[in-house]
Amino acid sequence: MTERKGYAGNGLVHVKNPHLDSMDEDVLYHLNLGTKTHNLPVMFGDVKFVCVGGSPNRMKAFAQFMHKELGLEGDGKDLKDICAGTDRYSMYKAGPVLSISHGMGVPSISIMLHELIKLLHHAKCCDVTIIRIGTSGGLGIDPGTVVITDIAVDSFFKARFEQVILDNIVVRSTELDKDLVEELLNCSKEIHYFPTLIGHTMCTYDFYEGQGRLDGALCSFSHEKKLEYLKRAYDAGVRNIEMESTVFAAICGLCGLKAAVVCVALLNRLEGDQIKAPHEVLVEYQQRPQHLISIFIKKRLGLYNQMELLDNAFFLNN
Amino acid sequence: MTERKGYAGNGLVHVKNPHLDSMDEDVLYHLNLGTKTHNLPVMFGDVKFVCVGGSPNRMKAFAQFMHKELGLEGDGKDLKDICAGTDRYSMYKAGPVLSISHGMGVPSISIMLHELIKLLHHAKCCDVTIIRIGTSGGLGIDPGTVVITDIAVDSFFKARFEQVILDNIVVRSTELDKDLVEELLNCSKEIHYFPTLIGHTMCTYDFYEGQGRLDGALCSFSHEKKLEYLKRAYDAGVRNIEMESTVFAAICGLCGLKAAVVCVALLNRLEGDQIKAPHEVLVEYQQRPQHLISIFIKKRLGLYNQMELLDNAFFLNN
Repeated sequence: MTERKGYAGNGLVHVKNPHLDSMDEDVLYHLNLGTKTHNLPVMFGDVKFVCVGGSPNRMKAFAQFMHKELGLEGDGKDLKDICAGTDRYSMYKAGPVLSISHGMGVPSISIMLHELIKLLHHAKCCDVTIIRIGTSGGLGIDPGTVVITDIAVDSFFKARFEQVILDNIVVRSTELDKDLVEELLNCSKEIHYFPTLIGHTMCTYDFYEGQGRLDGALCSFSHEKKLEYLKRAYDAGVRNIEMESTVFAAICGLCGLKAAVVCVALLNRLEGDQIKAPHEVLVEYQQRPQHLISIFIKKRLGLYNQMELLDNAFFLNN
Repeated sequence: MTERKGYAGNGLVHVKNPHLDSMDEDVLYHLNLGTKTHNLPVMFGDVKFVCVGGSPNRMKAFAQFMHKELGLEGDGKDLKDICAGTDRYSMYKAGPVLSISHGMGVPSISIMLHELIKLLHHAKCCDVTIIRIGTSGGLGIDPGTVVITDIAVDSFFKARFEQVILDNIVVRSTELDKDLVEELLNCSKEIHYFPTLIGHTMCTYDFYEGQGRLDGALCSFSHEKKLEYLKRAYDAGVRNIEMESTVFAAICGLCGLKAAVVCVALLNRLEGDQIKAPHEVLVEYQQRPQHLISIFIKKRLGLYNQMELLDNAFFLNN
């Protein structure tokens, strides 16, 4: 079974579901939004950038950061959670930037993406770019390095996502937008206080056994077997490991959303399994993809200028 | 590859990982707890019941409810989130009852279970029963019905969980504790305002295409194909569908935890896909598994008596 990519040239988001047109109402249950209870075009019609990440607090902090960076009115500290009626996901808006949490793992981000894409469709959003800004385990790279994903691969290093539909398995492409990868790498050249590189990202269904960790409640393999697997992943081009990128690439690709994955590495998995860096170091690492994406968004909006270089130098020194 | 069940007769929780003993410190990263930063035996040594569910708010409400039901000191409204330093999971304790959120989907609950089981091991907990109290889509049953899972099955109606370890696929049993199922069914006989039944629970990796929904951003099948699939599931004994039960049964079984899954059905999937019941109806549905589990826990602790029948009648009428 093959499926066509969603890009159709008019910039709209493409839901690929003939049943939606005949629905009188669409309740986006896990977002606590709906077509009859909310005016989605008014609430979201101007959205151009959607940023998603696992943690609700981090996505709130990113929205506040973008509010400030875009020079929007008010101090941004009182941004309201648009999904406040549910605790499944959190959503914040700063001008044309929507910032949403997706929890951990493929199923959790998949529910959010289905409802988000219907939201963008109902709101008639146009030319939307979507970026996952996340955390990951690095592979042969220094902690704190930011990885821009060129291809999302599964546990077998294949660029594919297997979706069960009824009881058939459909294989989907996990290709991401190549131009967007280059554009993001160019933006990273403005930042000198951390390294950014392009690499494959491995997406697993499990943090412990599935990523070759020796420190879970269950572990049946040796230190040597673990290293042999991780080194094979490295040789296949994998530079970091997380738990959402394949389904993110697959769904966004099918729906015509230009998508990117930008994750910071919290540790180097060739050197250990436990995340032991001090809290403040981890917090600073998590701001790195946010900093990169803020430059990307400001450049796209024509709000970035050379003066920022001074700011970035300031960021480095403080 | 076969794996032995974890029951060993001494009532302790069994981590099956020879590497753990040689670790100087164990950081339970996603719970924001650790063996060097917290005195886990003092904090958790008395835990006998662990209840888990997707939503943080629901698990907080359950802990407050149990605090009251067990007649513990204070009003329970100021129970603190033990995982407050992270927003990945929430955890509350009411006497011997630990109540923890696990987010949505197999990967999310799997991370929590690895760290929870290590926590129970480090705390030297003994004779622990673990119950998932969740929400689900019903199959051929009325909304509001509570289903006690006898067997968790996958999208192909098989009682198995496939775990990727390095790049091998290991098949695990999803058997649950039969005596516990009967004990819970007996407890349900004390409650007359909603139906409880025993059935198979299907666990999927996706809420939309994977559960045959016609209302996602992507849908490639007809109403007829959907119904044909759901009816085959019903004929195979499936009475509800959710997204965590197979890995929950597999991991708990291997680690010697007696485990049960008790979910309320929010809708009948043979009649629709969207969750449209009014908010207050859904809130009341979600209290039903909590009510059942409170009776189970009180009976186990010798705190349940016939007077409760009056309470239950009161519950019904108000």
